[in-house]
Amino acid sequence: MAQKQIGLWLIGAKGGVATTVMTGLAALARGLVEPIGLITETEGFHSLNLIDWSDIVIGGHDIRNESLLDEARRMWTVSRAIPPGVLESVTPDLIDIETRIRPGTVLASGTSIQAIASLPESKVAKTPRSIIDQIRTDILDFAGTNDVERVVVVNLASTEPPWSSPIPDSFDELSPLLKHASESSPLPTSSLYAIAAFEADAAYINFTPSTGATPQALNTLAQQRGLPHAGCDGKTGETLLKSVLAPMFRDRNLNVMSWVGHNIFGNLDGKILDDPSNKAAKVKSKDHLLANLLPSTPQTLVSIEFIESLGDWKTAWDHIHFEGFLGTPMTMQFTWQGCDSILAAPLVIDLVRLVDRARLAGEAGSLPWLASFFKSPLNCHEQGFAAQMTMLHDWVNKHSTQP
Amino acid sequence: MAQKQIGLWLIGAKGGVATTVMTGLAALARGLVEPIGLITETEGFHSLNLIDWSDIVIGGHDIRNESLLDEARRMWTVSRAIPPGVLESVTPDLIDIETRIRPGTVLASGTSIQAIASLPESKVAKTPRSIIDQIRTDILDFAGTNDVERVVVVNLASTEPPWSSPIPDSFDELSPLLKHASESSPLPTSSLYAIAAFEADAAYINFTPSTGATPQALNTLAQQRGLPHAGCDGKTGETLLKSVLAPMFRDRNLNVMSWVGHNIFGNLDGKILDDPSNKAAKVKSKDHLLANLLPSTPQTLVSIEFIESLGDWKTAWDHIHFEGFLGTPMTMQFTWQGCDSILAAPLVIDLVRLVDRARLAGEAGSLPWLASFFKSPLNCHEQGFAAQMTMLHDWVNKHSTQP
Amino acid sequence: MAQKQIGLWLIGAKGGVATTVMTGLAALARGLVEPIGLITETEGFHSLNLIDWSDIVIGGHDIRNESLLDEARRMWTVSRAIPPGVLESVTPDLIDIETRIRPGTVLASGTSIQAIASLPESKVAKTPRSIIDQIRTDILDFAGTNDVERVVVVNLASTEPPWSSPIPDSFDELSPLLKHASESSPLPTSSLYAIAAFEADAAYINFTPSTGATPQALNTLAQQRGLPHAGCDGKTGETLLKSVLAPMFRDRNLNVMSWVGHNIFGNLDGKILDDPSNKAAKVKSKDHLLANLLPSTPQTLVSIEFIESLGDWKTAWDHIHFEGFLGTPMTMQFTWQGCDSILAAPLVIDLVRLVDRARLAGEAGSLPWLASFFKSPLNCHEQGFAAQMTMLHDWVNKHSTQP
Amino acid sequence: MAQKQIGLWLIGAKGGVATTVMTGLAALARGLVEPIGLITETEGFHSLNLIDWSDIVIGGHDIRNESLLDEARRMWTVSRAIPPGVLESVTPDLIDIETRIRPGTVLASGTSIQAIASLPESKVAKTPRSIIDQIRTDILDFAGTNDVERVVVVNLASTEPPWSSPIPDSFDELSPLLKHASESSPLPTSSLYAIAAFEADAAYINFTPSTGATPQALNTLAQQRGLPHAGCDGKTGETLLKSVLAPMFRDRNLNVMSWVGHNIFGNLDGKILDDPSNKAAKVKSKDHLLANLLPSTPQTLVSIEFIESLGDWKTAWDHIHFEGFLGTPMTMQFTWQGCDSILAAPLVIDLVRLVDRARLAGEAGSLPWLASFFKSPLNCHEQGFAAQMTMLHDWVNKHSTQP
Repeated sequence: MAQKQIGLWLIGAKGGVATTVMTGLAALARGLVEPIGLITETEGFHSLNLIDWSDIVIGGHDIRNESLLDEARRMWTVSRAIPPGVLESVTPDLIDIETRIRPGTVLASGTSIQAIASLPESKVAKTPRSIIDQIRTDILDFAGTNDVERVVVVNLASTEPPWSSPIPDSFDELSPLLKHASESSPLPTSSLYAIAAFEADAAYINFTPSTGATPQALNTLAQQRGLPHAGCDGKTGETLLKSVLAPMFRDRNLNVMSWVGHNIFGNLDGKILDDPSNKAAKVKSKDHLLANLLPSTPQTLVSIEFIESLGDWKTAWDHIHFEGFLGTPMTMQFTWQGCDSILAAPLVIDLVRLVDRARLAGEAGSLPWLASFFKSPLNCHEQGFAAQMTMLHDWVNKHSTQP
Repeated sequence: MAQKQIGLWLIGAKGGVATTVMTGLAALARGLVEPIGLITETEGFHSLNLIDWSDIVIGGHDIRNESLLDEARRMWTVSRAIPPGVLESVTPDLIDIETRIRPGTVLASGTSIQAIASLPESKVAKTPRSIIDQIRTDILDFAGTNDVERVVVVNLASTEPPWSSPIPDSFDELSPLLKHASESSPLPTSSLYAIAAFEADAAYINFTPSTGATPQALNTLAQQRGLPHAGCDGKTGETLLKSVLAPMFRDRNLNVMSWVGHNIFGNLDGKILDDPSNKAAKVKSKDHLLANLLPSTPQTLVSIEFIESLGDWKTAWDHIHFEGFLGTPMTMQFTWQGCDSILAAPLVIDLVRLVDRARLAGEAGSLPWLASFFKSPLNCHEQGFAAQMTMLHDWVNKHSTQP
Repeated sequence: MAQKQIGLWLIGAKGGVATTVMTGLAALARGLVEPIGLITETEGFHSLNLIDWSDIVIGGHDIRNESLLDEARRMWTVSRAIPPGVLESVTPDLIDIETRIRPGTVLASGTSIQAIASLPESKVAKTPRSIIDQIRTDILDFAGTNDVERVVVVNLASTEPPWSSPIPDSFDELSPLLKHASESSPLPTSSLYAIAAFEADAAYINFTPSTGATPQALNTLAQQRGLPHAGCDGKTGETLLKSVLAPMFRDRNLNVMSWVGHNIFGNLDGKILDDPSNKAAKVKSKDHLLANLLPSTPQTLVSIEFIESLGDWKTAWDHIHFEGFLGTPMTMQFTWQGCDSILAAPLVIDLVRLVDRARLAGEAGSLPWLASFFKSPLNCHEQGFAAQMTMLHDWVNKHSTQP
Repeated sequence: MAQKQIGLWLIGAKGGVATTVMTGLAALARGLVEPIGLITETEGFHSLNLIDWSDIVIGGHDIRNESLLDEARRMWTVSRAIPPGVLESVTPDLIDIETRIRPGTVLASGTSIQAIASLPESKVAKTPRSIIDQIRTDILDFAGTNDVERVVVVNLASTEPPWSSPIPDSFDELSPLLKHASESSPLPTSSLYAIAAFEADAAYINFTPSTGATPQALNTLAQQRGLPHAGCDGKTGETLLKSVLAPMFRDRNLNVMSWVGHNIFGNLDGKILDDPSNKAAKVKSKDHLLANLLPSTPQTLVSIEFIESLGDWKTAWDHIHFEGFLGTPMTMQFTWQGCDSILAAPLVIDLVRLVDRARLAGEAGSLPWLASFFKSPLNCHEQGFAAQMTMLHDWVNKHSTQP
């Protein structure tokens, strides 16, 4: 009997990462590309019986009117990243997915995100509760129509400004506040989506630094409903390198005096991060791990700048100034020239497969063993990449199906 | 009762690394500097009861006539690396050590090393056996005169050309060949020193890519005499980064297509490596680990060039070209500006403390758990730095003295 | 008959550039160093009969209480830039100069500069006119006491915030406003110093982006009194490279799409620039020349960040993204690791010699042929370095004394 | 009446630069692309009345059997450099050009070039004279068949090994030697082509470091026949930057101690340069200009390595170590990531237009005012790029048609 399919619901479904996920899954299913960049295709993961490329049905929310095909093609026309031949081959798949995209919401998402919303439905002011209900209905309709066994919701929307209002620790306390007027939402947009996901019986992944399912009240909700979730903020490039290099300086007892990271890129994500309030959330997520990984906290500085000509090519220059034996100052610099969506998309696919597998294994609440995927891993203090990979491999070994 | 001292016998005692080891130990003993760069001063190592700075008496061999003080001062005048104030403070210590330096040998060390020998004693042609006897006598005299409890011999001499003649696997077979004439030595210089060390009841560390105690016959000799040894080739800079970064590319299933490493520096070590035959040994040691760490072997290229103006500042530029999701090519570059002797010296001190401690713990033969210190670790297949650090910490935890 | 001496009056006399100028001139006069970095020591300048190192008497203003010797030594202790041996040799010269340093003023210099003033005299609130009178008196006293023939005043003080109030175009209109209360100064501090310089019959050089003698009214004053002046903002590192590289992209018709320059350093100048209002003046001066040099204005971004561990080592990373034939995007990156004061000091000395020589040649007002020295050259539209050097060499050739 | 066309005859017609020239001229003529990278399209050149894109008919020689279309497409499939859409649009033009490509010769071109020759005609051993006759006939046939007014021959073939045999200074002495057997050719291949070009009444451009028309005897031949020629070795990337940056260090009197340039790339040109004898010619051409531009010759090192994954993307890392004021050592590094053929092709087109224009202006022999295009300009000592651009602009101004 054929394995049943699962649903993948993307928030921010027309963005660069989402369209690359769609293009990539379609290209993999059609056998057009090798599974480069997919961790779940390395040795050891095969015996987990993870869901197959062709068993994933995609839908999602977005707040923009643009055509999905046009957005996917921008990866080529602006960034020369996905060859036009591949895009052409998967065009039928993208047209199919477009029929399953529903209008999202910008309630409590901040002015910069609200400014790019081009769908009128996305801007209708409703109570947080009625918005959650709408999102939940969209997800359930998707699941029913496509007869999928389980759903995974992934947040790929633009980074929200940091949320400063206090959030109650219990969902029972939080719940009544959701009925307030839209202007006094007790939660940012990303958390409304997370609640809707859990209420629609879906697992949830927060690939952004936004609040999502991070609050204790939401984790409890997930646990009560037996649903796993993972986050926050995919670790794709410069921060990945920090989590690889900082342990080396620590292990060699070299005294890092300062660590400067300067990031430039030109995609839509970068445009939103050009707003200082949105940028603040991202910088915090990129910066905090050094203090965790190094014995004495160095002076750190992370800057992120929108440079339009770079498109999806996130270029980072890091300058690490450290003191060695006899107090001698030395320097390491690196330049990382990575294509943001190309780096992120396989991690999203890996996470969908693993979070879905964790659900089958009966896990609920946040999943600390997925820390290697995130800049700000939930429920996990370890920030070193190698140690995080050990956690991942330990889980995989434990859950491998022995013949 | 006061702990007895140990002897540290340095081969290449007037080189940059050796003089930095001497300066550093003296400065540490005098409390002039913090123990930055010393792994054995990080958490977890304290309960090993390692030998103290002031309990190490230094002597050694060299083939050059130069004054030890002048050589130590070159770190400042040429490379601006050790402040003149520190050098001045430890001058009495260096003068004292100079009295314990004996003429080394250049038998079977290749023409480039022979060209820099300025001591007539170093060039006397004798049989390999009589040279071993002389070295052994020097070490035993040193141990006796200074009443040290144990001796550790460290090879810090310039890199020899690769040794191509076959070496018998058993010491019994090898031993008679040592009585041949000097021109037909069955072993390179570094191995003669290693034999002398073992015969003088000393542990041995090979911090260079030269042959040293690597041959099976010498490892057997060490085991028979109950002596530990470790090697080869201290992992100080560019190769350290390779062993940190390559596992990241592997773990993320990114396909490294090419990895180019270009090294420039201007110290005596660099001058010797300017000879293509000596360079060959070094390049091999710096290059081979990528094939070990990456699933599909990339095109690799390591170049090492003598640029006089850089002095001890080894600058490396690495260019890593890798393929990500959907076949997209991306690039990482790094520049490492490290002071070679400053990076090496604390590793030498760490190794002396740990190899001596292993001897107390009854270990003999090569020590695979010291792999993190070396480019070409003996008796250990693992080349990833994080995994090697786990091996080291496991040993430390096992041998910690519980209160 | 011996040539008479000239006076060099430094504003910001205890800063890094000033103390390096003093140390350098003393070391040159004592024959301790080669004249590296001094343009006026290259071929063609010798026949100008410029003033000699030993014929320059130094004094100046500062607002800080610190000892000049301590400040000079910071170049070594913090930045390892001037060897302690050189500093020791010139100590008598620095002690001598310290007797000729007078308290400066912080009137209208902005809060960040006011915060570092430690001399009570610097903070006394007086009318701008009475402050000018005091400065003028200090300069005239210096000139009289030391019997110097002519004086050159150089502004080396920290960068002021940009001045936004309108400044009258004629000195006659401006003059009465100087008698207003200190809170409503019509000019920033640097311009008060410039007026005082001209009133004390001194030539003036503005090595900073502050306003100085830039206003038309002050240029007129200089012209009326027959005094030359030059500025603004010494072109020492990253901006120098921009003025060298941008003409290449222009001449090769390559389309620069974006040019990002990220500067990090840790000296006092950097600390002041950490204040966004002071930084604004500097960024503008570093950024504007690209629009001048390139046919189509690229997106540009200049950031300057205070990273304490770097001391005087200004490290700049520039990323230039340009389009070539058939629209192919390409990239050039550079890293500049320069010691700020070491780069600036010889330019200051060159300027003093040349401005003084221009005065002898009867020139008054701003000197456009000195454009190659400045980021924002007065009275000169040309920003390309090679073209600016041609202007300089033309002037030199014209004024060379033929035998 | 319509302007008559000119012929462009490319030696190495199937290589990356040649196919990019063809693609570019076709795309320009069809109005598909902007003339980015073409110097002759900048201000000042318009009044020269240079030949138009559509007035250039292309033919040439090659020694390989490959299809021109396939070779052109490699720029996309291997290097992602020319978008498939552009290649598709110009396919008819490339098919047309292919009919005009004739078999070249490998006589006296060295073993590496001989190894890639796949056309049997290219390997026929004849006397140098009979080869010249064949080449001349091919060019004259091309000119006649296409009824072109004038022909320009451009050498774009792979770099030959340096030619060490002495070459007579007069063509009269040289001429009889050409009748010797093929094994004792008095000239390398590139020079045989140059003679054939002049004998076919064509101007000649040597875009490679090969010998070409450099010998005095060939320059005389060109002068006698009233034909201009230009060379050697197009200055496209790293060497261009040297010629821009070295004058800055010189003008600022900074003492360059060492300049290391490390070049990696993976096209056919790179494969040929992997042969040490061919590489020697290239390295010399890339290296010699620093000694010319800097007052005291620094230690220099140029390396060129074939890294297949990079395709046409020539990546260069340069490390410049210089001494500033008070002897302080500082560093500049740059990384250049340029697409070799994309950088070279517009220079070839510029040169064809300008050399043809010079012929109309009656110039014969080598053209020193084209120095800015070459690493080793003929008949011109000046190596600084800005000074060379002044020479070019002076010529242009002199020959502009005034209305």
